[in-house]
Amino acid sequence: MNKARAETFSDGVFAVAATVLVFAILVPDVEDGLLANALLAEWPSYAAYAISFLTIVVIWVNHHVVFDSMDRIDRPLLFLNALLLLTVAVIPFPTGVLAKYLQAGHDQQAAAFAYGLAMSSMAVAFSCFTLYARRFRRTYVPLDWIGFSFGLFLYPLATLLTLASYRLSLAIYALITIFYLVLPILRERLAGSSD
Amino acid sequence: MNKARAETFSDGVFAVAATVLVFAILVPDVEDGLLANALLAEWPSYAAYAISFLTIVVIWVNHHVVFDSMDRIDRPLLFLNALLLLTVAVIPFPTGVLAKYLQAGHDQQAAAFAYGLAMSSMAVAFSCFTLYARRFRRTYVPLDWIGFSFGLFLYPLATLLTLASYRLSLAIYALITIFYLVLPILRERLAGSSD
Amino acid sequence: MNKARAETFSDGVFAVAATVLVFAILVPDVEDGLLANALLAEWPSYAAYAISFLTIVVIWVNHHVVFDSMDRIDRPLLFLNALLLLTVAVIPFPTGVLAKYLQAGHDQQAAAFAYGLAMSSMAVAFSCFTLYARRFRRTYVPLDWIGFSFGLFLYPLATLLTLASYRLSLAIYALITIFYLVLPILRERLAGSSD
Amino acid sequence: MNKARAETFSDGVFAVAATVLVFAILVPDVEDGLLANALLAEWPSYAAYAISFLTIVVIWVNHHVVFDSMDRIDRPLLFLNALLLLTVAVIPFPTGVLAKYLQAGHDQQAAAFAYGLAMSSMAVAFSCFTLYARRFRRTYVPLDWIGFSFGLFLYPLATLLTLASYRLSLAIYALITIFYLVLPILRERLAGSSD
Repeated sequence: MNKARAETFSDGVFAVAATVLVFAILVPDVEDGLLANALLAEWPSYAAYAISFLTIVVIWVNHHVVFDSMDRIDRPLLFLNALLLLTVAVIPFPTGVLAKYLQAGHDQQAAAFAYGLAMSSMAVAFSCFTLYARRFRRTYVPLDWIGFSFGLFLYPLATLLTLASYRLSLAIYALITIFYLVLPILRERLAGSSD
Repeated sequence: MNKARAETFSDGVFAVAATVLVFAILVPDVEDGLLANALLAEWPSYAAYAISFLTIVVIWVNHHVVFDSMDRIDRPLLFLNALLLLTVAVIPFPTGVLAKYLQAGHDQQAAAFAYGLAMSSMAVAFSCFTLYARRFRRTYVPLDWIGFSFGLFLYPLATLLTLASYRLSLAIYALITIFYLVLPILRERLAGSSD
Repeated sequence: MNKARAETFSDGVFAVAATVLVFAILVPDVEDGLLANALLAEWPSYAAYAISFLTIVVIWVNHHVVFDSMDRIDRPLLFLNALLLLTVAVIPFPTGVLAKYLQAGHDQQAAAFAYGLAMSSMAVAFSCFTLYARRFRRTYVPLDWIGFSFGLFLYPLATLLTLASYRLSLAIYALITIFYLVLPILRERLAGSSD
Repeated sequence: MNKARAETFSDGVFAVAATVLVFAILVPDVEDGLLANALLAEWPSYAAYAISFLTIVVIWVNHHVVFDSMDRIDRPLLFLNALLLLTVAVIPFPTGVLAKYLQAGHDQQAAAFAYGLAMSSMAVAFSCFTLYARRFRRTYVPLDWIGFSFGLFLYPLATLLTLASYRLSLAIYALITIFYLVLPILRERLAGSSD
């Protein structure tokens, strides 16, 4: 099984999923004079779009790092990769739910719970994929426990927290994404290397 | 005619078709307090999405195996490839029909029949593509009769079975996908090779 | 300017345009017991989808042949390529118009005219692109007058014919696509070469 | 971090964003005999589609030039690239808003303002990306001040001008795109080089 073509297909799914997220932002249908306010009132859609977009970019970068570390792949890995892509390609749906109900002003808790559940599934699928992939690594690389457990425990935790406060959960979802965007930059800086 | 660019185009169609499947799952439009139940009631959409997504992945993997086995391609092969891609790219439509009417609670039979018809067309197109492609194989490879006849006979059979029980048909559609996902893993294990 | 990346971008646009065509086929919204008939009544949508899909594949193949024949590209060529891609990416719109109004049973003439106009624009853009590209060909290749004039004159002619009979126009649109699919296969056969 | 895969992902986002723009053009829903007029009345949608499509092509070409000039990339660059792609992938939304409200005949000012804001964000993101990328250039290349300041100052200016006349702003948006399409062709001509 050819590694390169599996990467091309995966890249395609990541890129399309990230780009069709824009359809979670609905073009408002309003009377004369109300468009400006309607566009401002849509800010939760913009926030949901941005968080989901950057989350997909983060998974894509990490997916790429895992693929790069392997010499070869096998069928079970392809299968785990397919499950991971399934959870990535579905993200436009919970993003649309979150955008719609944050704006509607009701059922925010259920929407935030659904969003967290989707993100948790994705984190679980990514962990299975990564752990299985370790057997094909060219060189020994210690498991990135911080990055790993962050997604695997924080997403389910934030999902459960929607029962207490959906605002807190949303803040945690955003922080997880920012954490994953900033952590590797900080590590690069600390390692004193610019590549 | 360049094999590589035909693969790139095909990969693009597979990846986009798999990713836009998510639009078969509709964001529910409900009153205050009803979102959680509405999301739970949408489980047939999630199941239809998952089965179609994994089916597209399976066809993509097999398409890749066929392409890899060929030294060169010709125009008739490109033509058969185009017909195959046409049947793959249409899958979001029967998936949307199935998701909508399983949830609506009526016309499930017609929806399951339409879905099976689409899958059968795809299996026929894939078989024509594969049989024609054999003339360009570098080395003699015995035809995979089990894998082959499975899709070609089981999809039409399950489609006809909707007339008796649409539930049985849906179970068979799901089992075909699982079979194709698991079969190559089992074969790899039996062959005692991890690649 | 790198030829390879221009091809990748173009391939992406072709693949996405072909795949999102499926949204021209609408999931019917019907009462209990009416789905089977509604799906059958949608046959113009399936036909419009198939013709547009195969047309995009034909342009993609020919686009690839032109790109392959060039040593290098320049900025005006990139500009003409962008105009061509613009006319390709828009095809889901006239396809949706045609599908909707053939089914609605009124305004078929206007819909067929709009479809023909879109196809004619695409043929004009492809001709400009091809003629300009000739300056970068590695070896002298006589212009394919049959293939060339076919699209450039038959599409506008069929578009005008909608004023007499939209059915005749639709038949010509379908025949042009079939002609372009079959012609190179016949030529390969006549040349006694299988590649 | 591998440059090639970052380019593939970026190309995918550019190609998908350009192609899904077509959904900003809505299939009209009219009574018998009104389709021709409805299609003519949709010209603002066609114009918005064409301008946004060509703008995405222009950014894609320039993105490619920047990527080509670099030996290697680092994590902060990937991060800036992600922000740029986020502003590119969102373009179908303001394009849809502009198309809808130019046609509706009200709130054109708010729609043109939103469109300009999206284009300005994209110009800012592109400038940050380009400036940071300069540290990885293989050879010293003077900053393209004309091209640079054009987008960075003209987009925000045109956005503010919507408060005076939205028609003027729309003309400027179109002119910026044409300028960026034509400028490199003129430069190539002046340099007496055809590549």
